[in-house]
Amino acid sequence: MKFSELGTKTLRNSPKDEESVNAKFLIQGGFINKLGAGIYTFLPLGLKVLNKVESIVREEMDVAGGTELLMPALHPAENWQITGRWDSFDALLKTKSNFGGEYAIGPTHEEIIYPLLSHFVSSYKDLPVSLYQIQTKFRDEKRAKSGLMRCREFRMKDLYSFHATGEDRDKYYEVMRKAYLKIFKRLGLNVIETKASGGTFSELSQEFQVIAESGEDTIYYCSKCKIGINKELRRELRSPTSGSLKSDFGACSGCKGELIEGHAVEVGNIFPLKKKFAEDFKLTFKDKSGKDTLVEAGCYGLGTSRVIGTIAEVCHDSKGIIWPRSIAPFSVHLLELDGKKAKIKAFTQKAYKRLLDAGVEVLYDERDVSAGEKFADADLIGIPFRAVISEKTGGKIELKERNSKKIKLIKVDELIKKLNGNIR
Amino acid sequence: MKFSELGTKTLRNSPKDEESVNAKFLIQGGFINKLGAGIYTFLPLGLKVLNKVESIVREEMDVAGGTELLMPALHPAENWQITGRWDSFDALLKTKSNFGGEYAIGPTHEEIIYPLLSHFVSSYKDLPVSLYQIQTKFRDEKRAKSGLMRCREFRMKDLYSFHATGEDRDKYYEVMRKAYLKIFKRLGLNVIETKASGGTFSELSQEFQVIAESGEDTIYYCSKCKIGINKELRRELRSPTSGSLKSDFGACSGCKGELIEGHAVEVGNIFPLKKKFAEDFKLTFKDKSGKDTLVEAGCYGLGTSRVIGTIAEVCHDSKGIIWPRSIAPFSVHLLELDGKKAKIKAFTQKAYKRLLDAGVEVLYDERDVSAGEKFADADLIGIPFRAVISEKTGGKIELKERNSKKIKLIKVDELIKKLNGNIR
Repeated sequence: MKFSELGTKTLRNSPKDEESVNAKFLIQGGFINKLGAGIYTFLPLGLKVLNKVESIVREEMDVAGGTELLMPALHPAENWQITGRWDSFDALLKTKSNFGGEYAIGPTHEEIIYPLLSHFVSSYKDLPVSLYQIQTKFRDEKRAKSGLMRCREFRMKDLYSFHATGEDRDKYYEVMRKAYLKIFKRLGLNVIETKASGGTFSELSQEFQVIAESGEDTIYYCSKCKIGINKELRRELRSPTSGSLKSDFGACSGCKGELIEGHAVEVGNIFPLKKKFAEDFKLTFKDKSGKDTLVEAGCYGLGTSRVIGTIAEVCHDSKGIIWPRSIAPFSVHLLELDGKKAKIKAFTQKAYKRLLDAGVEVLYDERDVSAGEKFADADLIGIPFRAVISEKTGGKIELKERNSKKIKLIKVDELIKKLNGNIR
Repeated sequence: MKFSELGTKTLRNSPKDEESVNAKFLIQGGFINKLGAGIYTFLPLGLKVLNKVESIVREEMDVAGGTELLMPALHPAENWQITGRWDSFDALLKTKSNFGGEYAIGPTHEEIIYPLLSHFVSSYKDLPVSLYQIQTKFRDEKRAKSGLMRCREFRMKDLYSFHATGEDRDKYYEVMRKAYLKIFKRLGLNVIETKASGGTFSELSQEFQVIAESGEDTIYYCSKCKIGINKELRRELRSPTSGSLKSDFGACSGCKGELIEGHAVEVGNIFPLKKKFAEDFKLTFKDKSGKDTLVEAGCYGLGTSRVIGTIAEVCHDSKGIIWPRSIAPFSVHLLELDGKKAKIKAFTQKAYKRLLDAGVEVLYDERDVSAGEKFADADLIGIPFRAVISEKTGGKIELKERNSKKIKLIKVDELIKKLNGNIR
């Protein structure tokens, strides 16, 4: 894609009304635009990153046996009254039709998927079922000041699994836990599996936390085995009888590794819903003996837009973002310097076409601006490879990785080979 | 995909609370589920159709020079107050934060994209810009009784183009008009290009209408040249001075073809916004002489979920939907009869695997239900090809097209070839 086709620009200065690193870089780089507190537009560059994140999540959910659907954002009030959360769910945004009917604007979808499942589940033969969606969610967040980390409107994957027994649910929990670890690995994020408030040591229930100075959570984690405990939970527990972390400050009871305190961002959480909502919505099935039995369920959330904010927080330097290859908006940023010279222009256009033909995702900066501006934008946008063509490069391309200082002159063919080799 | 992996089922009976053909078939077939008036979940089968429709739209918008972005659904009230539509837009749903701030829940995005563009447009060199999104929209529809035809929450593609001059805008209008015709052709929809209320003969502004008994619009259209006029407009016009249709009942002034009255569904509309919103939001650029000039714009809408409802309305028989190949949820529906016999089961599983390996999208009905139920479901779901394996087919596959009665025995290899040939 040509830079001018983006329809957007990088901004000269970072926004003054944003405090967080992710918002500053993502806005200045032309990935997102702020519409209001915790409400952002995904600009073309940002949408490309979001699509890549969500594709990875989708692939791994499919591998883990999930089937995708898309539930509405307008939820009839009655559904939320049944669970009691119409009044108790703190961050619930509501709206009203002029023609009758009140709605919650969906912050989560238990209230929708349970009554939905009652159309399709009646026998033990209909279980297990694993359904997910990747979709926009709404929460009336009080503190919406951290860019994509805490939004009033955000993107999320939520999967709900339904089972005949608690054992089957726990077995699937392990499948999902592994899928999550695979997703975060592909996203280039180091996660700490953390026991969270609301769960206990003996229970399956956890958050996936990324250590980041700007994180809103505080966790204690083992420096060796990379598992942790949320500070909130630590306070709750007085004498845990199992688990690999000790309840007092000290070493990890599993591997004797040192416990470290750190700020962290929760990018995902998985936990059993047990029979709570099945009771509310009378979601039952006939077991093998013909007895009506409540469905067991699990819930698996992952914030896809928060992942982008988190990566910007942990993968950057003073000049801009450093995207992991798997979710970079493009594979290579092609910079045309001295483009006013017909020979350079022609050579760059040819290189661009050859890259496109080879299936390489390339952002071609063909603008009539200074070399300094192009270099600064390349660092700010943070595409993994920067390829410069100028008079100096003499028929070759000067290649540099975003997170390295090494520069190398290579031929177009070699570049194509290198990028295909990395990506395909 | 195996039928049992869908997580949903077809329903034995068509829903009693739905009047429209599209809702009846789409719900009974397991494509959508009704959550409330004009609010539907896209179940796995329905989401597959939606994704195919939106992929076609996306491809053609990209070809036409559009760049995709994603704007929020929560719109600060201030943006809508600036245009005066906070009070005047009939179907506006609103919500309020507990921490300050009121929002419109986005029914259209002029109020968002104009202030957004002001960050990126300052000179004539920054124009034209063409940005689109494919996204969920919200409207407080009074009559939400026609399935996917008129919803309170629905999917839509909206593109906004911005230009330095009216001439450039009109030139782009023609590019988009042709893109729309190509999209509807690929979707298998016959559209009538219709002059709409609000426009005049001498102006570029039109709807794309599909003739359907259940359509809410009434249009007069030429039987030969397939252009039309909305009844609403016909009433408004007293003496049109140009255009190819006469204002009184009679023949088409262009080709002398007969004018026919018919009900129709509007699946898209394109029109110039001129300078209306640019004035509201002070969206200007410096022209070549350095003068501040208001930006000219056009707006191009296409209802992607309504397209699905429309196709169900016009492409069905008494047994169910007949999907065009381009948007069918799968290319072939593989029915395993006599699956209790190990030999048949093994042969069908092998055929399924070979189809998958060949990249064919196949729905494999491996359920332990009667042949009659499988045939009925195949007709109801409406996948273009039905492939039956049973004792009778003797090592071959019995192939039938959904909209034909002819049956043919072919080998697995031939089926793969036929489907690849059709699809790729």
